[in-house]
Amino acid sequence: MLATNSRYWTSLGIASQAMAGRSLYVMSRRVCASIFSCRHSHQHRLSNIFKPLNVMPKGAVKKSDEAMSISQKLLVDLGITSLRSNGMYAMLPLGQRVLNKLTALIDEEMARVDSQRFSLPHLTKAELWRITGRWESTGEELFRTEDRRAREYVLSPTHEEAVANLLSDVQQLSFRELPLRLYQISSKFRDEINPRFGLLRCREFLMKDLYTFDKSEDEAVCTYNDISGAYGRLFQRIGVPFIKVAGDCGSIGGDFSHEYHYQAAIGEDTLLLCQTCGYATNAELLPDSNNVLPCPKCKSQVDKISGIEVGHTFLLGTRYSKPLQACYRNENGKPEVTWMGCYGVGVSRVMAAVVEVLSHPDSIVWPWMLAPFKVCIIGPKKGSRESSVSSWVEHMAHMVSKEDGYVDDIVIDDRDSLTIGRRVLEATRTGYPFILIVGKRAAEHVPIFELIDTVTHESHHLSHQMLLQYFRETVKNKQKL
Amino acid sequence: MLATNSRYWTSLGIASQAMAGRSLYVMSRRVCASIFSCRHSHQHRLSNIFKPLNVMPKGAVKKSDEAMSISQKLLVDLGITSLRSNGMYAMLPLGQRVLNKLTALIDEEMARVDSQRFSLPHLTKAELWRITGRWESTGEELFRTEDRRAREYVLSPTHEEAVANLLSDVQQLSFRELPLRLYQISSKFRDEINPRFGLLRCREFLMKDLYTFDKSEDEAVCTYNDISGAYGRLFQRIGVPFIKVAGDCGSIGGDFSHEYHYQAAIGEDTLLLCQTCGYATNAELLPDSNNVLPCPKCKSQVDKISGIEVGHTFLLGTRYSKPLQACYRNENGKPEVTWMGCYGVGVSRVMAAVVEVLSHPDSIVWPWMLAPFKVCIIGPKKGSRESSVSSWVEHMAHMVSKEDGYVDDIVIDDRDSLTIGRRVLEATRTGYPFILIVGKRAAEHVPIFELIDTVTHESHHLSHQMLLQYFRETVKNKQKL
Repeated sequence: MLATNSRYWTSLGIASQAMAGRSLYVMSRRVCASIFSCRHSHQHRLSNIFKPLNVMPKGAVKKSDEAMSISQKLLVDLGITSLRSNGMYAMLPLGQRVLNKLTALIDEEMARVDSQRFSLPHLTKAELWRITGRWESTGEELFRTEDRRAREYVLSPTHEEAVANLLSDVQQLSFRELPLRLYQISSKFRDEINPRFGLLRCREFLMKDLYTFDKSEDEAVCTYNDISGAYGRLFQRIGVPFIKVAGDCGSIGGDFSHEYHYQAAIGEDTLLLCQTCGYATNAELLPDSNNVLPCPKCKSQVDKISGIEVGHTFLLGTRYSKPLQACYRNENGKPEVTWMGCYGVGVSRVMAAVVEVLSHPDSIVWPWMLAPFKVCIIGPKKGSRESSVSSWVEHMAHMVSKEDGYVDDIVIDDRDSLTIGRRVLEATRTGYPFILIVGKRAAEHVPIFELIDTVTHESHHLSHQMLLQYFRETVKNKQKL
Repeated sequence: MLATNSRYWTSLGIASQAMAGRSLYVMSRRVCASIFSCRHSHQHRLSNIFKPLNVMPKGAVKKSDEAMSISQKLLVDLGITSLRSNGMYAMLPLGQRVLNKLTALIDEEMARVDSQRFSLPHLTKAELWRITGRWESTGEELFRTEDRRAREYVLSPTHEEAVANLLSDVQQLSFRELPLRLYQISSKFRDEINPRFGLLRCREFLMKDLYTFDKSEDEAVCTYNDISGAYGRLFQRIGVPFIKVAGDCGSIGGDFSHEYHYQAAIGEDTLLLCQTCGYATNAELLPDSNNVLPCPKCKSQVDKISGIEVGHTFLLGTRYSKPLQACYRNENGKPEVTWMGCYGVGVSRVMAAVVEVLSHPDSIVWPWMLAPFKVCIIGPKKGSRESSVSSWVEHMAHMVSKEDGYVDDIVIDDRDSLTIGRRVLEATRTGYPFILIVGKRAAEHVPIFELIDTVTHESHHLSHQMLLQYFRETVKNKQKL
């Protein structure tokens, strides 16, 4: 029970409208005191980070009703995600950081092509899905619910119906307001018959879905090319080699589509690629693709590889805008149906797929742009002979944190009851790109630190100044896009 | 169909593990070209922003099965949110910006008290809710679904069960890892019997929910005070007067709780406040509170006001951790039950509540920290006598965008087929704190600009330099916390 400030009381009634931005508020002195004395830490410390290791007793067999993949095993074992029910995962703090970084990259690339972030409800009225026929055609993959008045809803796996309905509700959408590009980053639901490989095929996942609206087919193709450019740049910045192929429109429908894939043995799509003429397609598009075919364009032999689909772009045409009446007014004030496109990135799937592609069987390798932290700093074990140098840990964290590209991206492994070796092993497995060790050579006349590059496994012994220089050069090389 | 780069192909198989951070990728020249020629704009322009105005024909009666509030009317009419189905709203781009700003404030204050962001699936297994008894007790407010194998799930309105279950799955959680503070910002679902007042009482909403775990009651109370401090600071930074009262534990259960309210006639809670001794409580806690009672502490007369609840903190004790076995190992390796707390902020509700409290009947007033843009710049109408000064619009946007506190926070109303007056009216109603008009006086020897403060309705005529100075001073005053 807290004291209220009576001076404020009397003024509240008449002053509230002018109070925007003022700091008048009601609270006790006790709360005030705790505000200004709260534990305040700008440095990230592993002792504060929830990262439960999943250590299997030797010989134990993991019980799970899902097929496993490298990424699933690593992400769960290292405390980055956690399986909560069949095909549904929690993002633990390190996983959340990876997602936030990926989301920030997406936001940047979407802004460059004038796409605006918005969000639709997760629940979409069944009647909209009935109008397009997908209420029936999607079948058991659709999670459904109904409210207390027996009105039915879809737990949306995608939002073509919902966004077309939003547009149709706009009074007098003018041709001047097109092209229109709206995207969201939100959880989607799909009741997979066989959830497997962790985040690669799960039942609740994070997706970026962009919907575009244009006046004509020509302008919709222009938009399609613009967005394809943004996709190319996004996947280039993520930094993992990707493959773009002609795609199958599948249940979404529409005129044509392209898919973005990472190559991985575990990938569920078969891609056909011709090195001679550059022809690249999902095998689903060809009849009888179980046999190796000659390239339909140049008749050379095609390569057949497995891919994980991480992005998909569709030129939808009027498949949704027509039945749902997503119209605009043309120059003469007459209503016309908009041309739609939709563009997805499997955000949580990208996170797992990059791990699947880059990692070693026992340790994660992150692409530079998505690593949960870029540098893990490890100081001497408490009570060891080197413990006198431990003040360098905070100092180095402070210095590196000020460098461009490292702000908010340093973590100290301050669990100093553990040996340096034990912590280096865990940091290597977790895949921080750099491990900085403050060990006994930090006590030398010119202190020397060990820097391990966990991608190349190179180790460098550097002075304080050389280290900062090394970090700067790295950012220049890795973030030059 | 796009050409692939065959040089890359041959290296992919053997090089993928070392490729983290490299820029090798497969794409056509056409995509490359479009990447670097994409429409690139750092300035926000209203012509690109989806902000559909809802203009009711005179005399028309709005059809809606919901009761209306000022905030609902303004947020929908000005294209900030959109009603998609009963009690479910889309966040349009301006609304999404407000939510992003609020989320960023929450992230900052949570980090200060060592809380870590994570995310749980929206769907929680029914069996966990059965264990705590809430599967039955929550009744019709719970949206439920089942999968293709008839396994039941809750569309979670809150996550006490899910997070306690997460903790119970951790092998050997050590006393060293406590206190543990995990929060998420995600959509929640509640099938309200009577959704009303827009985002103030809807069926799908954005909530910040923090869960804390401690070793003992004493430490849980310590955590409670820490988090209460963060809440005080958060609400102070939002900048709208708030009231903290003793709260009702309701269906969540637990030992004690506090609520954070904004005063508003439309508020559904009755708060009792004593100006003499500072006693402050939700009337639900007292018997027979329909009558004005003397203060239980000092017997003075209490004030009775209406409040909108925007935050709620609970000391839960072992209400969830015991049945769900969220345990840790103590110093002797023995398992003990953790002490829990939970702490909510209604994120989308705060957005509506600040509008409810601050706004005029026809125009929104945002608190400084949450305004979708801080400055709207309006240039002359195309073809008007003043149109020669229009180059100042871009220049001023560029200059102001470089000022601390205004980065990414300027919007140009470039719809220059509209008069200045028409655009000023819309900008005022939308509630940008400042409107900067580049009009005919920008052509003077020392160009003069008009700055309207939409909170105070003051208008200033300032030179370029004075204007920047004015903006700097404003930030110093408004963001001093």
